Amino acid sequence: MTGTVKQSRNGVDTETLFATLDAVKAAPEAAKFQFRARNEWVSGTHSRSTIADYSGVGAERAHERTFVFDADHPAVLVGKDNGPTPVEFVLHALAACLTSGLANIAAARGITLHEVRSTVSGDIDLNGILGLNPQVRNGYEKISVRFQIKGDAPADVLKALIEQSRQRSAVFDVITNGVPVTIDVDAS
Amino acid sequence: MTGTVKQSRNGVDTETLFATLDAVKAAPEAAKFQFRARNEWVSGTHSRSTIADYSGVGAERAHERTFVFDADHPAVLVGKDNGPTPVEFVLHALAACLTSGLANIAAARGITLHEVRSTVSGDIDLNGILGLNPQVRNGYEKISVRFQIKGDAPADVLKALIEQSRQRSAVFDVITNGVPVTIDVDAS
Repeated sequence: MTGTVKQSRNGVDTETLFATLDAVKAAPEAAKFQFRARNEWVSGTHSRSTIADYSGVGAERAHERTFVFDADHPAVLVGKDNGPTPVEFVLHALAACLTSGLANIAAARGITLHEVRSTVSGDIDLNGILGLNPQVRNGYEKISVRFQIKGDAPADVLKALIEQSRQRSAVFDVITNGVPVTIDVDAS
Repeated sequence: MTGTVKQSRNGVDTETLFATLDAVKAAPEAAKFQFRARNEWVSGTHSRSTIADYSGVGAERAHERTFVFDADHPAVLVGKDNGPTPVEFVLHALAACLTSGLANIAAARGITLHEVRSTVSGDIDLNGILGLNPQVRNGYEKISVRFQIKGDAPADVLKALIEQSRQRSAVFDVITNGVPVTIDVDAS
């Protein structure tokens, strides 16, 4: 197996990955990032976010292009279905975070992945957000993730990749442990 | 002010909104929903989710179209920037959830909104997910939301809309209070 093959395993540039780890070890402040989304209300439950700039490694940075996403409610929830509901984006974020970590970890361990699919399901009782039952929370009651993973290692080794990804997932941590959120309003 | 004007305040069909509330009051089981995202790994940290079907009001349902979203890491985080990072989608979800609730609540209270903008910022120290410092959590340390809102009511009344939206936001609850997540793996 050549170095070139190693570098591109799972599409992960492992040399750069390890170099990045070494760089952050040497300068831990480089790992402080701030991510941002800017949202504009369109009409009714429809709004639109742009994701463009962030800070990290001691500088302001920009994505290679500006990403734009609409969110809305479907008609059954009195919207016009111009985009997924906000809670569905949370499920996408969780799937994507666990999957990106998985690919990195597999590459670092020398395991080639053939296929990774996941379905994330969130159960929610809207009596909470509708204000109809104070016993019911506003958010998901539970979220279930089901992975199908194929790779060049035994099933238990592949499963251990998911477990390690879970232990190092930013979105899994946010969703399971919570984050303090402050809200400031400039009204006129 | 005519009934027609009331119906379309802020783009919210308030008659249907109130009818929906009455319907759920009469049949609370109708408010049990399950939302889903299906993700497929592409390469490296790049993955793609589809959001298409969900269940609610006692039936399987589909969005009017299938929504597709890519997620990736930027080059500085050893990705190819094919989409926002998973943690950025979480910020979009929070902004969109607070904003959709705001428009509904304003309409229900007879307040016309002229403009609603928000910026959501999340501070994260990647020493956590990189496994370099066990004292640092994987997820955001804190999230800050800043709203600019203009409408036909005094500032304190507009601010109260945001506060009510916060109190009834599904994503705010998920992010601040956490949700149990189970992960199952089918590996081969």
